[in-house]
Amino acid sequence: MSLLVTGSIGIDTIKTPHGASERCLGGSSVYFSMAASFFGPVRFVGVVGEDCPFDLPAVFRDRDVDLSGLEVRPGSKTFVWHGTYHEDMNERTTDYVELNVLQEAPPTVPEAFRDSKYVFLANTAPALQSELLQQISAPAFVAADTMNLWIEGQLDDLKKLLGQIDCLVLNDEEVRQLAGKSSLIEAARAVLAMGPSLVIVKKGESGSLVCGADGDMFVLPAYPAADVNDPTGAGDSFAGGMMGYLAQAGNTDFETLARAVAYGTVVASFTIADFSLDGLTSITRADIDSRLESLRNFTRF
Amino acid sequence: MSLLVTGSIGIDTIKTPHGASERCLGGSSVYFSMAASFFGPVRFVGVVGEDCPFDLPAVFRDRDVDLSGLEVRPGSKTFVWHGTYHEDMNERTTDYVELNVLQEAPPTVPEAFRDSKYVFLANTAPALQSELLQQISAPAFVAADTMNLWIEGQLDDLKKLLGQIDCLVLNDEEVRQLAGKSSLIEAARAVLAMGPSLVIVKKGESGSLVCGADGDMFVLPAYPAADVNDPTGAGDSFAGGMMGYLAQAGNTDFETLARAVAYGTVVASFTIADFSLDGLTSITRADIDSRLESLRNFTRF
Repeated sequence: MSLLVTGSIGIDTIKTPHGASERCLGGSSVYFSMAASFFGPVRFVGVVGEDCPFDLPAVFRDRDVDLSGLEVRPGSKTFVWHGTYHEDMNERTTDYVELNVLQEAPPTVPEAFRDSKYVFLANTAPALQSELLQQISAPAFVAADTMNLWIEGQLDDLKKLLGQIDCLVLNDEEVRQLAGKSSLIEAARAVLAMGPSLVIVKKGESGSLVCGADGDMFVLPAYPAADVNDPTGAGDSFAGGMMGYLAQAGNTDFETLARAVAYGTVVASFTIADFSLDGLTSITRADIDSRLESLRNFTRF
Repeated sequence: MSLLVTGSIGIDTIKTPHGASERCLGGSSVYFSMAASFFGPVRFVGVVGEDCPFDLPAVFRDRDVDLSGLEVRPGSKTFVWHGTYHEDMNERTTDYVELNVLQEAPPTVPEAFRDSKYVFLANTAPALQSELLQQISAPAFVAADTMNLWIEGQLDDLKKLLGQIDCLVLNDEEVRQLAGKSSLIEAARAVLAMGPSLVIVKKGESGSLVCGADGDMFVLPAYPAADVNDPTGAGDSFAGGMMGYLAQAGNTDFETLARAVAYGTVVASFTIADFSLDGLTSITRADIDSRLESLRNFTRF
């Protein structure tokens, strides 16, 4: 089924204990689309400024990513992010950020994308996520990401969004903050009571937890990767792999969802092995399937 | 096969966000033995002072725990530990400690225990662990726990011990510290190179990682328990469940080991649901098997 993503395109400068990359391609919709494209077609919606140094059509040339929702806005500047990962790469510092075009009006969803069935609203202000969602006529499954900034500053908008989506994806600190509870499971259940029928908690190298409104639960460790060089984009790649698999499967029963989360986990493990998108552009779907089988073996008892 | 444990017996005073317990029974060998006794007989070696307020034979009355290695030392005082768990119960502060009898000579392993095949050396000074191990004539599988104190202060003794054991059990911070590497997998592999053929990394609510010398790997999330009231004894219960299952199975191939780690995970999830040993004394082996099946369902994809 059709899959649409809205999110950022960024000029990233990244330092990690294993190297650095200056002004490389990043952004949530870019990582998401690259990850999801292993499973099926992706409809891309995002905006850059006229200064954007990247040739996105070339980046996605061999992939089934429809860029007709990519807007190059004259007179605007592209989103810029500089981050440093610490020795414990679960911790990172944002050194510098220019929101630029991200603080202007969101891009328009093209007419031809409005019948999309699977929708991922990558992290941005929840009011904008709602506005983007309203442009989709009859979505079958909507997932959204969020972050501490909106939980702290735009909680009413976020709660309104939670009534409109099927699935919230967020990290462990965020779910605790949103729910005001320290137990992850209690926190996830409290967020379920705010509207979505699924909550997916990303725990970085500790894996993920999925809670469903009817009591379903799924837990998965991260893929045990020795090779971690740049964690940037791990969460968006996870979401891309998961949503890509779900859209391809065309259903969201809990068993399919568990497999989708496992695919997301595996795709993210490739992302973090190299800087920018290099971990994803160097692999095939067969590599992903092979690593999924390894993950199954590593977790079997 | 026969299973022997050496470790501490403590008078614990515990505060958590969910309650408190004063001068309750604790200690590594106590939690270990209670956990392991669900799977088969346990040989207990430990020492208390003459002030010990607990009736250990009564505590283990209905369990197959042989207390002939329990020494009540005249003129000595029992180990005392006071700890407080924070709102994030992965963090705890030791408020007060009296090592007392633990800093004296270790207990003697009774003659009848010296043919033990499975041995667990709970956390104590590594020189004492070696001394205790030398009293076992021909062990088949020896596992040991350790901690930051010995990694920092008695590294030579610890390295000597690592050449004498099959399996080291430690937490994520400790393995990073011992190996001087931030990646858990690289750290575990570096510890394998120091001697043991298995390294088991306990990550609290993030589960566990097992690395074998021949490249075997197993990863498991913690049991997703909403009910966490007192994490004390989780690690020792994990080890008890694991070693209890291994001794019962009578082999340590990697498949059996993975199942043993899953049993350890499940037993620990019962321990943390209540204060002191109450989470373990209120359940049966059937409860453990049922929860193991739940964990299998929660992790299947």
